Amino acid sequence: MSEVNVPASPQQLPVQSAQKTRNKRPLRIALFGFGTVGSSAARILVESKPRGLELVSIFNRGVERKRVDWVPSSVIWSEDAEAVLASDVDVVVELAGGLEPAGNWVRKALETGKSVVTANKKLIAYQGVELERLAASKGGHLKYGAAVAGGIPVIPALEQGLAGDRIERIEGILNGTCNFILSKMEEGAEYATVLAAAQAKGYAEADPTEDVGGFDARAKLAILMRLALRVEVDPEEIVPRPITEVSAVDFSYARDLGCTIRQVARAEQDHGSVAATVGPMLVDLHSPMAWSRGTENMVIFSGHYGGDVVFSGHGAGGHPTAVAVVSDLLALAHGSRRVEVPSAPARVSAEFEVPHYIRFLVVDRPGIVAAITAALAHEHINIRAIVQKPGYPAHALPFVVTVEPCKSSALQRALASIRTMDCLLEEPLDLQMLE
Amino acid sequence: MSEVNVPASPQQLPVQSAQKTRNKRPLRIALFGFGTVGSSAARILVESKPRGLELVSIFNRGVERKRVDWVPSSVIWSEDAEAVLASDVDVVVELAGGLEPAGNWVRKALETGKSVVTANKKLIAYQGVELERLAASKGGHLKYGAAVAGGIPVIPALEQGLAGDRIERIEGILNGTCNFILSKMEEGAEYATVLAAAQAKGYAEADPTEDVGGFDARAKLAILMRLALRVEVDPEEIVPRPITEVSAVDFSYARDLGCTIRQVARAEQDHGSVAATVGPMLVDLHSPMAWSRGTENMVIFSGHYGGDVVFSGHGAGGHPTAVAVVSDLLALAHGSRRVEVPSAPARVSAEFEVPHYIRFLVVDRPGIVAAITAALAHEHINIRAIVQKPGYPAHALPFVVTVEPCKSSALQRALASIRTMDCLLEEPLDLQMLE
Repeated sequence: MSEVNVPASPQQLPVQSAQKTRNKRPLRIALFGFGTVGSSAARILVESKPRGLELVSIFNRGVERKRVDWVPSSVIWSEDAEAVLASDVDVVVELAGGLEPAGNWVRKALETGKSVVTANKKLIAYQGVELERLAASKGGHLKYGAAVAGGIPVIPALEQGLAGDRIERIEGILNGTCNFILSKMEEGAEYATVLAAAQAKGYAEADPTEDVGGFDARAKLAILMRLALRVEVDPEEIVPRPITEVSAVDFSYARDLGCTIRQVARAEQDHGSVAATVGPMLVDLHSPMAWSRGTENMVIFSGHYGGDVVFSGHGAGGHPTAVAVVSDLLALAHGSRRVEVPSAPARVSAEFEVPHYIRFLVVDRPGIVAAITAALAHEHINIRAIVQKPGYPAHALPFVVTVEPCKSSALQRALASIRTMDCLLEEPLDLQMLE
Repeated sequence: MSEVNVPASPQQLPVQSAQKTRNKRPLRIALFGFGTVGSSAARILVESKPRGLELVSIFNRGVERKRVDWVPSSVIWSEDAEAVLASDVDVVVELAGGLEPAGNWVRKALETGKSVVTANKKLIAYQGVELERLAASKGGHLKYGAAVAGGIPVIPALEQGLAGDRIERIEGILNGTCNFILSKMEEGAEYATVLAAAQAKGYAEADPTEDVGGFDARAKLAILMRLALRVEVDPEEIVPRPITEVSAVDFSYARDLGCTIRQVARAEQDHGSVAATVGPMLVDLHSPMAWSRGTENMVIFSGHYGGDVVFSGHGAGGHPTAVAVVSDLLALAHGSRRVEVPSAPARVSAEFEVPHYIRFLVVDRPGIVAAITAALAHEHINIRAIVQKPGYPAHALPFVVTVEPCKSSALQRALASIRTMDCLLEEPLDLQMLE
C-alpha cells in the first residue's frame, strides 16, 4: 500500500463533460507557491504517485532558492506566472494566499477553462461566489477543501454527507494559533510568553493580528456559512473580538465556573435571520470545544434532522492541508461533482441570545455591585452568579458577573450604562458562554 | 430556508452519463422499508422537498398498517416488491436490513440498471465488493453512506476529503447500543440493569447478541477497512469479543488506571499485514473515545500525512441515518461520483502490539502473583502495574495486571499457561488498552 487513493481503472472514469476529454491522460497540475503547503502537496504527489495526477510545473518567486532534488526532473520550475498560466496545464493549484496576486492567477486560470484548487480562505471568503460563477461559465471547477480546517474534511462532509440535512448552527475552533495560545494560557501561562513561544515554533506570524484579532477565523466562518447555512455574507460584517482581551484572571474565573476559554467562530440561522461572531468565549470543561488543545481545529454542525456532528483534527500545517489539496485534485480527476448548494446574499447581525460572562476590574468601594446589577436589571437581564475570588488588591479588584441568556444588544446597552461608572479601571470584558 | 440542499438550477447539473438522460426530471425513488429510518427518510423528502428527488413508492410488508397521512397521495404504497422493482423508478432505497430478502431486491434493482441507496451494513460488509461491480457493469450506482455511523459523514469524508492521504489505522465506537450500556456502567450501573433500560428505550433489541457480541460493529469495521485501508476482508475473520465479559469491578479498576471502557472497533495496516478486532477496551479518560457517551458514535482515522481526524455524532436513530440516505440521493441526483478506491482481498489477523489490562478472579493463596508474573516473563512480557484494591473477599478476589505493549499472540500463550492454575474462579479477562 504505497499509493494514495487511485482509480482502479482510470479509463472507466470519465472526467466532467465540460472539460476537455482526457480519459487516458492524467490531470496536468501547476503548483503556484512552494512554501510549507506547496512543498507538502508536491511531496505527496511525488511519493504516493496517485494515478490520474501529474505534477508538471511549480511557480514561485525566486524559484531557484526553492528547488529541491526529490522533485522529478520532468517538472518545470518557473518564476513566470503568466507563462505557466498560458501553458497546457489542466489545474492550477494556488497556494500563495492573500487576495492579490493570487486572485489574478485564479481568475486567469478559470477564464481559460482551467480548474483551480486553492487553500486561500481569504480569496474564497471574499470572492468565492463570483469565482465559482466564473468557473461554471467557462467549464472549469473551483475546489477549496483546504481553505477551512486544513486536514479535517469539513467541506466535503458539508457538500456530500450532510447535504440532506438543514444545518442551523456552526461552532468552530478555526484558528490553530489562537487555540495554541489559549490552551497554553489555560495552563497558567501569560499571553505574551505564549505568543513568543508560538512565534518560535512557527505557529504564529511576526505580526499575529490576522490570527489573534479573529480575521483569519471569520474568513473561514464566512465560507462555512455559505456551504452550511447557504447564505452569502460579506466577511467584513462579522465583527471579530481579539483574544488579546483575555487575561490570566479570566482563565482563573472561568475554571471556577467549570469552563475554559477558546476562540470560537459561531454562526446561526433562525427564521431567516443570520447571526455570526468570532472571539474568545467560555466553553464548558466537559464540552468537545474544551478537548481541543494545541493547534487543533474543531467544527460542530448542528443539523435540524441529524443533530450535532463534531469534526476535529489538524487544521493547519503542511501535510494535513496538502491532504485536502490532493483530495480535491483526485476528486477533479475522478470527475466528482459537488452537490451544488443554492445560496442567497444575507446580512449578518451579532445578535445572539446566550448567557454571558462579564469581568470587571475596579477600584473597590461600596455600591459597585448594586450599580452594576441595577443596570442589568434595567435591561431585564437576569444574573446567574456573582463571583469574587479572594486575594486581589482593592485598588485593582477583578470580579465576575454571569448572566442568563439575553440578547447581545440588551447586554451592550447595559454595558454602555455601566461604562460611565468612574470606579472601572478598564473596559468590562463580556464573553459569550457556550452551552 | 425551508429546503435542504437543492441544486440552484438542476437543468445545469447532468446526471451520470451511464444513467438514462433525465436532465429535467427528478430522480424517482422507491423506498423499501418504512420503519424508523424509512419513515424518517420519507419525512425529510416530504418536508424539505429537495429539488431533484421524487418519492414515488413505498414498499413494506403489511403496508396498510404503515400508511401515514403526511405522505402525498401521489405516492404508491405497495407490498409487492417485484412490482415495485419492475416499475420505472430510478433509485431503490433499501432500508429493510439483513442479507435476505434485502440482498435479492438490491441485486434485482442493480441488474436492471437502477441505482441503490442502502443503510444495510451487513449486506455491504459481506457482498459490497460484488454489488459495486454489478452496479458498475449495469450503469447504476450503489451508495451506502448510512451503513456506518449513521448521521456522521465518515464514508463521504473517506471518499472525498481524505482520499489524498494513506490511512494507517481506524479506531471507532461504531455501536450505539454498546456505548450506551458501557457509559452507563461507567457510572456504576450493572450490565443487566442497563441492558433492560436500553431495551425499554428502544436502544437494544430483545436479543441483543448482534450488538453486544460485536457482530454489528465488525460489519461496519469491515466496510471502513475497505474504504480506508483499501483491503477487502471477510468480516467473519474479525473475531469479536462480547462486552458482556466486562463487569463493574473492571470499571472500578479502569478508573484507578485513569481509564474507562468502551467497545472499540480497531484495524490497522502495517507493511501489508492487516489486523482487526472488535471488543471492550480500556481508553484513557482524557482521550476522545472516553468523551463519547450514550448512543453516540465516534471514528478516528490516522493518516500517514494528515495525522488523526476525529468524527463524532449520532451514529443511529431515524433522523440522523435518514440524513445520510437523503445525502446519498442528492449526490446521485447531482451526478456526484465517488473517488474510486482500488482495494484488494486481504487476510485479517488479530495480532496487535499494544498494552493490555488483565483482570483475574481468584481464591486467594500465596504464590499466585509469582506464578502469573513468571508465565508473563516466560513470553518476555513486561509488567506495567499490579493493582489490588482492598475490600474484596479472599475467596473471590479480583486483581489486575497491566502489561507493556506486547504481541497479542504472546499474551495468549502466557494466558493459556496461566489458565491451568486451579486458583482461578473464572477465565482471566484481557482487554487491549488504547494509547
